[in-house]
Amino acid sequence: MNKQILLRNRPNGPVDSNTWEMVESVIPEPKEGEVLIQTHYISLDPAMRGWMNDTRSYIPPVGIDEVMRSGTIGEVVKSNNHPSFKVGDILTGWGGVQQYFTTDGKGHFKVDTSMIPMTKYLGTLGMPGMTAYFGILEVGKIREGDVVLVSGAAGAVGSVVGQIAKIKGCRVVGIAGGPEKCKHVVEGLGFDACIDYKNENVSSGIKTHCPKGIDVYFDNVGGDILDAALARLRMHARVVICGAISQYNNTVIQGPKNYLSLLVNRATMQGMVVLDYAKKYAEAGMQMGMWIMEGKLKTEEDVYDGIDNFYDTYQRLFSGDKRGKLLLKVIEE
Amino acid sequence: MNKQILLRNRPNGPVDSNTWEMVESVIPEPKEGEVLIQTHYISLDPAMRGWMNDTRSYIPPVGIDEVMRSGTIGEVVKSNNHPSFKVGDILTGWGGVQQYFTTDGKGHFKVDTSMIPMTKYLGTLGMPGMTAYFGILEVGKIREGDVVLVSGAAGAVGSVVGQIAKIKGCRVVGIAGGPEKCKHVVEGLGFDACIDYKNENVSSGIKTHCPKGIDVYFDNVGGDILDAALARLRMHARVVICGAISQYNNTVIQGPKNYLSLLVNRATMQGMVVLDYAKKYAEAGMQMGMWIMEGKLKTEEDVYDGIDNFYDTYQRLFSGDKRGKLLLKVIEE
Repeated sequence: MNKQILLRNRPNGPVDSNTWEMVESVIPEPKEGEVLIQTHYISLDPAMRGWMNDTRSYIPPVGIDEVMRSGTIGEVVKSNNHPSFKVGDILTGWGGVQQYFTTDGKGHFKVDTSMIPMTKYLGTLGMPGMTAYFGILEVGKIREGDVVLVSGAAGAVGSVVGQIAKIKGCRVVGIAGGPEKCKHVVEGLGFDACIDYKNENVSSGIKTHCPKGIDVYFDNVGGDILDAALARLRMHARVVICGAISQYNNTVIQGPKNYLSLLVNRATMQGMVVLDYAKKYAEAGMQMGMWIMEGKLKTEEDVYDGIDNFYDTYQRLFSGDKRGKLLLKVIEE
Repeated sequence: MNKQILLRNRPNGPVDSNTWEMVESVIPEPKEGEVLIQTHYISLDPAMRGWMNDTRSYIPPVGIDEVMRSGTIGEVVKSNNHPSFKVGDILTGWGGVQQYFTTDGKGHFKVDTSMIPMTKYLGTLGMPGMTAYFGILEVGKIREGDVVLVSGAAGAVGSVVGQIAKIKGCRVVGIAGGPEKCKHVVEGLGFDACIDYKNENVSSGIKTHCPKGIDVYFDNVGGDILDAALARLRMHARVVICGAISQYNNTVIQGPKNYLSLLVNRATMQGMVVLDYAKKYAEAGMQMGMWIMEGKLKTEEDVYDGIDNFYDTYQRLFSGDKRGKLLLKVIEE
């Protein structure tokens, strides 16, 4: 049987027990030209919260009674004359929160797992890594010597952002929740400093660690932390709006009250969506693969087990009770 | 005697009767190498409110007991061997809210008033015009066919922004307060449409007049209008943050709660300060002078009389009870 998580009710605020329902259905048969994929891992991302809102966005909302959208990686277990994919191939794409699905292969890509474990293709070599790469290089436009501040510094995106900025010769300060994460960000990932927003005053922390201000702020969180960063921008600073996890569950978004710092400092705040860079994923993947092999880019995945635990695992995105890329293993062994 | 307006107390919120004091002092004598200028007009600008706050900004705050800062135009009435300025020269610069002042000439520029009236040098050929020119062209980066939305459309900056955008082949929609201003913006200045924020729902108005969304929003006001504009951005839109008159008297700024539209639409919000473009003022002045002579750029000044009326005239910036560039004539005839 195929366990699937369906969206039953759009959440108004945080998700609750009525949001999704797990159903079991018969494993589908691939039609002519299709493959059947058994999913091994699904990706859990803060963006999931937004995909459930019935609003105009960069991607259509998940429909009611549809399988919840997610990035996936899995194995072709049956092929009905698919022109390019065969049994045993490992494919990554948008498989959704379910154990099996059929596809004509559109939007799915074959990956090589002989050297690189499967989980990396949902992390550093997947959407979070690509987001970090293009966000900090193309939107943040970092230059050697820049002071770079990154929120969500222990997360899937922020951890890569900061390490790329270090590779490029920047001074990098992270913001993360709790002493353990902050220690990891500095000692494990090589950031110059990390502010513990759960136990420190973020504004004071920024003042201490970025005494001359910030050239680039990479924002994954929004809210008060975005305001604290705006208050310390340098001239011609760039603010990359990648996400706003502090706000996704709010029905009214907290706007950045310090946005006039953009005027005072002739600064730019720019939003990004990683899908725009699809044509350059391969280039970024090769570069990041090299950095990983050279030991310059350290990444980790936090893997939980069982599609039955989807709801609880999803909560970790918002509680912060995870480190690095959050994944759920959905193959039953 | 020389009437001067001094800053006595920093306002917390709107200015009040304790903010400034008018004093009379002896007309100063120019030192060696200085000139004495009799000011004819002073410029009243929303930025004045910000200059009284004791906060880090793009220009130091006006000091307590100092003459209130303002742009001015006036005539050299005495020269003490000034190397380049002589009696009768007309100079524009930062003279402050007073009738006479001495200067070594730094930051003051001689202008030709034989063809162009003095008042234009504080308007279209002064800071507001330069702000409009560089803001819409260099920050807004307008292209032919863009849909451009401008708030404060009847004001000194907005009226010029919209007309330049029309010259460049854009569709231009203004936002202004009251039917009379809106009529002027469309019929007098040639905007395609104007939304009356005092009598219309701005969001609906934007939907009606920009059905496919906005490519460039030029913001002079902030607050709810900025949010309404953000909600209707097109892909890769540019938001020019020039001012936020709705917020200048607030002790807590209303942040734009729709800022995540920047993410969804891969849009950019960028602040600007006109002083950065000083080296190109001459170029812009010539271009705008040509447009004025060709009848393509219509500008007007709203002139009030008497330095004694400074306080009341200043209020018009915030009540909106003025049209075009607000000036105060301070020479007594």
